[in-house]
Amino acid sequence: MIWDLGFAIWDLGFDVIRIFVTGGTFDKTYDEIHGRLAFADTHLPEMLKLGRSRVEVSIRTLMMIDSLDMTAADRDVIVRNCTQCSESRIVITHGTDTMVETASALAQGLTGKTVVLTGAMIPYAFGSSDGLFNLGSALSFVQVLPPGVYIAMNGQHFSWDRVRKNRETGVFEPLA
Amino acid sequence: MIWDLGFAIWDLGFDVIRIFVTGGTFDKTYDEIHGRLAFADTHLPEMLKLGRSRVEVSIRTLMMIDSLDMTAADRDVIVRNCTQCSESRIVITHGTDTMVETASALAQGLTGKTVVLTGAMIPYAFGSSDGLFNLGSALSFVQVLPPGVYIAMNGQHFSWDRVRKNRETGVFEPLA
Amino acid sequence: MIWDLGFAIWDLGFDVIRIFVTGGTFDKTYDEIHGRLAFADTHLPEMLKLGRSRVEVSIRTLMMIDSLDMTAADRDVIVRNCTQCSESRIVITHGTDTMVETASALAQGLTGKTVVLTGAMIPYAFGSSDGLFNLGSALSFVQVLPPGVYIAMNGQHFSWDRVRKNRETGVFEPLA
Amino acid sequence: MIWDLGFAIWDLGFDVIRIFVTGGTFDKTYDEIHGRLAFADTHLPEMLKLGRSRVEVSIRTLMMIDSLDMTAADRDVIVRNCTQCSESRIVITHGTDTMVETASALAQGLTGKTVVLTGAMIPYAFGSSDGLFNLGSALSFVQVLPPGVYIAMNGQHFSWDRVRKNRETGVFEPLA
Repeated sequence: MIWDLGFAIWDLGFDVIRIFVTGGTFDKTYDEIHGRLAFADTHLPEMLKLGRSRVEVSIRTLMMIDSLDMTAADRDVIVRNCTQCSESRIVITHGTDTMVETASALAQGLTGKTVVLTGAMIPYAFGSSDGLFNLGSALSFVQVLPPGVYIAMNGQHFSWDRVRKNRETGVFEPLA
Repeated sequence: MIWDLGFAIWDLGFDVIRIFVTGGTFDKTYDEIHGRLAFADTHLPEMLKLGRSRVEVSIRTLMMIDSLDMTAADRDVIVRNCTQCSESRIVITHGTDTMVETASALAQGLTGKTVVLTGAMIPYAFGSSDGLFNLGSALSFVQVLPPGVYIAMNGQHFSWDRVRKNRETGVFEPLA
Repeated sequence: MIWDLGFAIWDLGFDVIRIFVTGGTFDKTYDEIHGRLAFADTHLPEMLKLGRSRVEVSIRTLMMIDSLDMTAADRDVIVRNCTQCSESRIVITHGTDTMVETASALAQGLTGKTVVLTGAMIPYAFGSSDGLFNLGSALSFVQVLPPGVYIAMNGQHFSWDRVRKNRETGVFEPLA
Repeated sequence: MIWDLGFAIWDLGFDVIRIFVTGGTFDKTYDEIHGRLAFADTHLPEMLKLGRSRVEVSIRTLMMIDSLDMTAADRDVIVRNCTQCSESRIVITHGTDTMVETASALAQGLTGKTVVLTGAMIPYAFGSSDGLFNLGSALSFVQVLPPGVYIAMNGQHFSWDRVRKNRETGVFEPLA
């Protein structure tokens, strides 16, 4: 059941959460006919069901791409959707490689909303994924953090301007 | 790496989180020799590794029991450990059936700390579990919620006195 | 596509295989409302799909019970179904505890058919199961073994009168 | 425990099975730092343990490559290893795309041994794999089939000269 009250009640944590899907490792699958990685439908609904989530969410897939292929135009689409949607709390699933860039674009183009970007190091479809943990984490942070743009990875949350991805270890680290 | 600063810095979200394990469905395993459910070691470290968690935690198993078997003496042990530990942010894994009772005991015996109880409807070891999602959720809520006793289930958080488990559906619901 | 030629062509390995489901650990599930092991529908079709099996099979659930609860009357049902079905090659999924007893009943009541009993030590639904391996094994043995009653467990096959289950280790062992 | 009797006792099905690993989808993993498919160590020992296999096997990795990259020189290595090893029953894990070509090379270069090639459409490491089913199948067929070169996929076995892989469906089909 999805409803839209038309105003933010973020201090109660019970308003509808908007989830925007953009692709990334999170939603990669294995194309068994061609033997390569590919994107198909998002796994978000299946993951929320597995987690027995009762958070009211409204899911929309904006794109389904590797974040290394994300252009400025793609980021405009993300920012515009976050600005125009009625929800004040937003989770974005995103490839980890350029998650910080998108967070930066959002911070410059958006005010008064709580946006949490998350992703995965291993595709959800591949069994030993961090995706379900990260989704539980992002969905929780977004309900209680004040307006701002955040990245939720490795069980932690970071303000968009205080974090970088360490490409050698795959871990998100606080900027000094 | 675990360290203890000796004072709470809960508004930064970077202090050590204490995790107390008490058993529950979360940690049930299948005893293949006797063909029945059983408890062995906790799966917490394995789950945190799978989630690539970088949150500093200190894990201690207090008991490994079904929450239907939990006595007042067991709850005293939990309350005492929460009171006496140096950490001000605590996650407790717990069977869902009496999670609300333990939360109530904690609320009466404890002040100034943020305690989040969580559990699972399906054992983590059984593949299709909500445990990893719930752990990501509880670990995130505990970093940002103000002092108090909470239950984190189904992607939501509830104050200890505003929730009940619906035994027919297995879902935690807000009290009217 | 299922067809029935009405005669055995076991040396070609392309006739329809009959699969009788009787329950056992193989098909146990976790009842999350009551927190206990239970039986629901068989996982056989899902497992065959996962294995991308193209073997023509015809599946029938005879009972869904723990093999420790299996009575002489239950075994009569199994023997009668094996005798009366038109297929000459039969796989039976069965609890491991009394699999040898049922194999013995079949050996006394049946001639001219190849019957392979198999099961699992860990329920298929619980992730780390031996069930898929055992199903691949049983389905293969049944296509090439001469008429007789066999048990396929641990990657091996045993004639019904040359095997016992070691209750301490859970392993099927050849009789000296 | 591995032993070598020095002579074939294939009709008993209890001699040591040689397993040669050549790579293929079977053993692909996900390289989380670079976000791409890769090969690391073989999953064979882990899979045999999961299947609770008690078949005596001796595993050797010959190469770890995509079968589309397999050269005539690579196939010579496979044929030579099959010829020179003391075991008379051999399972080869292999990419599905050129499995039939390797089977053909083996049929021309080898006599008196039972060789079964198998593989997977989905990597074992990715959760929803057919690999465990296929391994159970191949390991069973190799114990009971007479000398020859076979492909075991989709729960079926095919003589090397009676099968092709349908590239559109990913299914191995009998040649008319």
